[in-house]
This record gives sequence, C-alpha cells and structure tokens, in this order.
Amino acid sequence: MSGQCRVVVIGAGFGGLAACEALAGADLDIVLVDRHNYNTFQPLLYQVATAGLNPGDIAYPVRAYTGPHPHVRFRQDEVTNVDFSARTVLFKEGPELGYDFLVLAAGAGTTFFGVSGAAEHAKAIYTMEDAIAVRDMALASVERASGHGAGEGDLTVVVVGGGPTGVEMAGAFADLRQMELSTQYRELDSSLSRLVLVEQQDPLLGAFHPKLSAYARRVLERRGVEVRCRESVKEVRPDQVVLGSGEVVACKLVIWAAGVGPCGLTEALSLPKARGRVEVGDDLRVKGFPDVFAIGDMAAARQGGEERALPQLAQPAIQEGRLVGEQIRRLLAGEATAPFRYKDKGIMATIGRRAAVAQLPGGLRLRGTPAWLAWLGLHIVLLTGVRNRTSVLLNWAWRYLSWRKGPRVIAGG
Amino acid sequence: MSGQCRVVVIGAGFGGLAACEALAGADLDIVLVDRHNYNTFQPLLYQVATAGLNPGDIAYPVRAYTGPHPHVRFRQDEVTNVDFSARTVLFKEGPELGYDFLVLAAGAGTTFFGVSGAAEHAKAIYTMEDAIAVRDMALASVERASGHGAGEGDLTVVVVGGGPTGVEMAGAFADLRQMELSTQYRELDSSLSRLVLVEQQDPLLGAFHPKLSAYARRVLERRGVEVRCRESVKEVRPDQVVLGSGEVVACKLVIWAAGVGPCGLTEALSLPKARGRVEVGDDLRVKGFPDVFAIGDMAAARQGGEERALPQLAQPAIQEGRLVGEQIRRLLAGEATAPFRYKDKGIMATIGRRAAVAQLPGGLRLRGTPAWLAWLGLHIVLLTGVRNRTSVLLNWAWRYLSWRKGPRVIAGG
Repeated sequence: MSGQCRVVVIGAGFGGLAACEALAGADLDIVLVDRHNYNTFQPLLYQVATAGLNPGDIAYPVRAYTGPHPHVRFRQDEVTNVDFSARTVLFKEGPELGYDFLVLAAGAGTTFFGVSGAAEHAKAIYTMEDAIAVRDMALASVERASGHGAGEGDLTVVVVGGGPTGVEMAGAFADLRQMELSTQYRELDSSLSRLVLVEQQDPLLGAFHPKLSAYARRVLERRGVEVRCRESVKEVRPDQVVLGSGEVVACKLVIWAAGVGPCGLTEALSLPKARGRVEVGDDLRVKGFPDVFAIGDMAAARQGGEERALPQLAQPAIQEGRLVGEQIRRLLAGEATAPFRYKDKGIMATIGRRAAVAQLPGGLRLRGTPAWLAWLGLHIVLLTGVRNRTSVLLNWAWRYLSWRKGPRVIAGG
Repeated sequence: MSGQCRVVVIGAGFGGLAACEALAGADLDIVLVDRHNYNTFQPLLYQVATAGLNPGDIAYPVRAYTGPHPHVRFRQDEVTNVDFSARTVLFKEGPELGYDFLVLAAGAGTTFFGVSGAAEHAKAIYTMEDAIAVRDMALASVERASGHGAGEGDLTVVVVGGGPTGVEMAGAFADLRQMELSTQYRELDSSLSRLVLVEQQDPLLGAFHPKLSAYARRVLERRGVEVRCRESVKEVRPDQVVLGSGEVVACKLVIWAAGVGPCGLTEALSLPKARGRVEVGDDLRVKGFPDVFAIGDMAAARQGGEERALPQLAQPAIQEGRLVGEQIRRLLAGEATAPFRYKDKGIMATIGRRAAVAQLPGGLRLRGTPAWLAWLGLHIVLLTGVRNRTSVLLNWAWRYLSWRKGPRVIAGG
C-alpha cells in the first residue's frame, strides 16, 4: 500500500457511524459517504410520519460528527457501483474513489413482493422523505375533509404489515385520531375514519412472545384499529385496497410496512447474496473479498451456526460496525480477524401512548406503561447528539402533558 | 342578517391571528382561512434559510390555536377571489363561503421590478418553502464543492437588497461561513466563498439612524461581506449576476431581499390599491366596502395625515388585527368605528452573532451585544406558542454555546 491507507464507509446509518467511530483514532484516511448530509434515526421515522416529531428531531448532521475527527472526511453523493478488481467506488456525481478497505453499510430498501399497484400507490416509511410524504398526505387529507367534507375512504388508513413498524404506525394513527380529530377538528365526524392493519401471519409481532403479541392486538383493537391477521393484500389502487379475502377497503393512504428488501446499491453490486442481503463470513468480510466488509441491514450476518440472518435492527448494525473497526485495525497490524458475536439486547415495539411491549434477554417481558417508559428512555438515550435528544424529550414531554401534539404542520416541518 | 353573523378572515399571519383573537369571545361564526395549516413566524425565516433553526421552530399549527376556540373554524385552502357584491369568498378547491364581514390579511408577495432573469433565478425568502429551498441549495452546494471541488461562483452568495432582511441574510451567511466552513469542511478553501450585498440606496438599513446604518456596514465588512451601495442588479443568470455598474459576479445563489409587492390575491381583487396594497380608510375598512377590512402587509394603512403607508412589519399587522376585532364588535353593537392609531414600538435588525441594531421610540438607539440580546429576547417572546419558544431558545442556546449550529440537514429539516 502506497501512502496512507484509505477506508471508504458507504452509508452514515447506525452501522457506518459505528465503524467510523471505532476507526476514528487510527492513522487512516477515512471517507464516509452518504446520499444525505444527515443521519436518520430510523426507529422513530414513524413519529415523523404521524406528526409527533419534527424531521430535525431525528436527523443528525453528519458534519457535526465528522467535524471533530480529523481523520474522517465526508462526501455527500450516491454510490452507483463498486469496481472490486480496481478497488474503486463509483459515484453518481463526483469522481471515483480508490479504497484499501471498503465497508458496505448502505442499508436496505422496500420490497413490494410484486403486489399489483403497491409500488405506485402504497407509501413506505424507510427514509425521511417517505415519512414526510406520509405526514403531509395524512394531514392534508384531514384538512381537506374538514374544509369540504369527507368522501368514502378519505380518512381511512390501511397499514400493511403487522411487525413492529406496522404496529407502531397503526398505534400512532389511532392516538392521532383520538387526541387530535376530536379536539381540533370538531367539525369532522371521526367515525368516518377507519384504521385497518393487515398482517399475513397470525399473530401480530411474530418475533415477540405470544402473550405480548396478544396484548398488542388487544390494545390496538381497544383503540379502534381493525386488525386483520391471516390476510393478504392483492392489489393497491389509488383509492382502494383489495385484500386476499376479496374485501375491498376504500382508502387513500396505504402504509407499506410489510417488506424490507435490498437497496439499490445491493442490487447493483456483483457480490454473493442471500435473500437480498450481501453474504458475509464470520468476520463480516464478504465471501471472496478480503478487503470488503458488509454490515447492518445490507449484510446477511449470521450468529454462530444459525441458518437465519440477524434481524434488520439498529443493534446488529451498531455491533457489526464496531467490530469492523477492530477488524481493520487487526488486519493492518498483521493479526487475524475475530468472529462476530451478537449480543442480544432484546426487542421492543411501542403501540401508542403508554402502551408498548419489550422482550429482554433472560426472558424478561414487559408490557403497558413500564414497557412504554423503557422504550421512551432507551430511544432518547440512543438518539445521536445531545441537541436532538433534548429536543425530542421536549417534544414528547410537551405532547404528553398537553396532548397538543408537537409539530403537525404540513410541508416544511 | 339571518342566522349567526359570519366573519371570514383570510390569512393566518400576524394580522389574521390577532383579528381572530380579538373576536374569539364573541358569539360569531369565525372562519380563518390559509393556504397552509401553520402560522409562519416570518421575522425568523432567514434563520431557516441559513440552517440556524428548524422549520418546525418557527411554524405554529393553526389547529392548535383554533382548537380551544369554539367559535373559530379553520379552512385550509387558497382564496382565488372575492365576489364583493354577493359577499362570497371563492376558493381554489372547496365550496364558496358567504360572509357578513371580511378581513383581508393575506400578506404580500415578492416583486422583482422586472429585472431580467430575477424571477427565474433569484430566490425570495418570504415563505417557508422559499426559506427551505434556499437552505437546501446553500448546503448542497457546499457539500458538492467539498466532494468534487468548487468551481467559480459555487460558494458565492449575492444578496440583493440592503434592508433588514438583506442585512440579516448576509450576516447569517457570514456567520455560517466563519463558524462552519472552517471547522466542518476543512477540505474546503473558505477563501473561495464570497458574500456580496447589493443595495440601490446608500446607506444600508435606510430606515435606521445613520449611525446604526454605518455600524451595520462596518460589522458586515469586518465579517467579510462585500457591501455595494448605490449599485443595482441588471440581470440574474443561472450562474452570474450582472450589476448596474457592469460588474459580473459569478454566483449560483442569489437571494432576493429587495422587494415586497402585492400577493396573488391582492392582484386578483377588484379593490382600490396604492403601490400594490389595498387602500383603507382611517378605520381600516376598504374604501367603498363597509363590510371589508384590510390589514397588515396587504393594506396601505396610514398613520394620521401621513402620506406614506405603515411599514410591512409584524407590529402594524398585529395592532391592525386587534383593532379590526374591536371594530366588528362596535359595528354589531350599532356603534361607530374608531380610527387606527399606530403605536410605534421601534425597529430592529440583527447582523449576526452578538451584533444587531435597534431603534426604540423616544430616540433610544442600541447596537452590538445589547441590541442583539434585546432582539433575541423580543423574538423569543413574540414567537407564538410556548413549545416553539422553548425549542427556539434551546436551539439558540446550544448553537451559541457550542457553535455547532443547529439543524443543518438538507431536505426534510
């Protein structure tokens, strides 16, 4: 290697930032690349989509992170492909960039499983733009209905997918309806609004203990959500959703929380893949590419001898990112890499105000207010950046005490 | 009048909200109309445009205001015209709406004085959308320059207009350059960035005492702004500005802070106008239309016998809005209307960090840190809504202490 060793990290999400953090002290030329100039705290995107938080509350400027690190540079651009034989990253706008080590951490995309009309008419909430679009659509339809009357389906939201994201979206919309429509849109008949949650399996929240799943369903139903398990979506039309059972739900807003698939970059790369994720070995290096690591949602990391890849959550990405930093230091020192060991910190999902489920390692299960408080505390602590943390806390405290929900402005929020 | 008396207020700005507030207790059917579902705190738009505040910090949801007032309804829609003989307001989307009293408070628009290319290539900052667009352009150009080098003019900003808005924009950009470029974009040569402020008159801030104007110029020049007084703009091109003197400045971002003109509604209405503002009598009723009031930027209210209309600031709008509320109550009670008396509360402009000018009634003049603190305090107090106030205060405190500026994310901020 001539000159300083260069590590290119693609993606400023949980994994990419953790990798940079772990490498920051080393004498390396680290280039962090992302399409956006901010890190999105994805677990709270549903809060932006339901107008509970401002976009700025869950976005942290990458420059504020790279600023104090003299060895980390940032480039805002889109990676179109990688020439692995020439060890070069190719960009949409800027000049190509050579690397000695490459860390692939670009995340995932949405998959619509070929459901007719879903890509055109359903809204995913995987990016900030997605979440803002959903918020603006939802608020605009309520304002329109309030101004000139609601047609059939104008105030109906169908959420497709009963995993944590779908449950959180349905629950947040139920809160929004109960707390907002009745007080601030008095002219509207809130019985016109329907919330339908569709899940192919039974129960909801399949990754959780059956008791927690049952609790989640009870809470949602008590808050007026129509839960349809063992139900599929056959077609999404501009103003209707056709379910597998043949039922047709009139509906203008369809949230697609059903499928995480490969992102565009994963699709473009000529690498071994399993179910849309890049195949990696025990040490997180891509099989056959000793200088390329893949982490987070983009990679199919496995725990020990398990068949299933780790879930696409923040924790695996963070732990993998940290390990990749160590691996690169080891390789540069001529040492062997270490295998990845995932430390399970549990899973949580919030259902709405004062209702959540949490399943911690060691079999501890929480639900209701204790789970909700745990969820709240954890998410506030996890939020990168002191400023964002305070702002989120403030928004939530205000919202909780006053039940005037926070932002709630259409466009530009 | 049959049934309940209806007052339609067009515009949820300072004037419109003040009018609603003054009427809220009365037994009236009050309909507040606005294109947006939020009130914009316009004096701080330049802070959004320069990434110092989040859009949500200076936007207050109208529904949070109308919610607790049972007599005030809100309709989000665009008013296209008014049929004064039928006493009916016409909307872009919703059905028309009859009125007994009408309050015109839709604000102003931007005028480019026919300067070639200005409407196409220069950016005004009169609305939230404007401010967000400027912010995204400015940050994107810096990221682009940092990623693949800066061409001529890529980092140059030309601000047209040396009134308070232009001075505030130029000063905020100077702060941004000094504090951000040097620490967070170390790879960029900040000497590539030019800030040019063009003003047709001499001095800057013509409405202020000459000593304050001179101080503002000194501060701006010390912070690296090239101030060009007695200079005009002949043409705006996509990557150049041609000045009246023949000088050509290479520049991708041109801020138009030079002209406030009639808004679209003012242009559409068949009413007597003076310099793009609706002519009103002493009691703020439109001449010849006894049931129509016009206030704020939209109206050409005059003080006593003065020739010049009041300045287009928040204070006249608020005071006029309050009086209109009283006038309608008086008219309903069969009493005579009262003449409008403007209470001058002074004028202020901030030039940047710890530098501002303020001119208070009674001849008191402040500048430097005291003026800046006064400006800060006043604007925080004036911000509608406790939540926004706290959030702004937090953003500013954080920014001041850390000089990591607040939001600074492109898109979705």
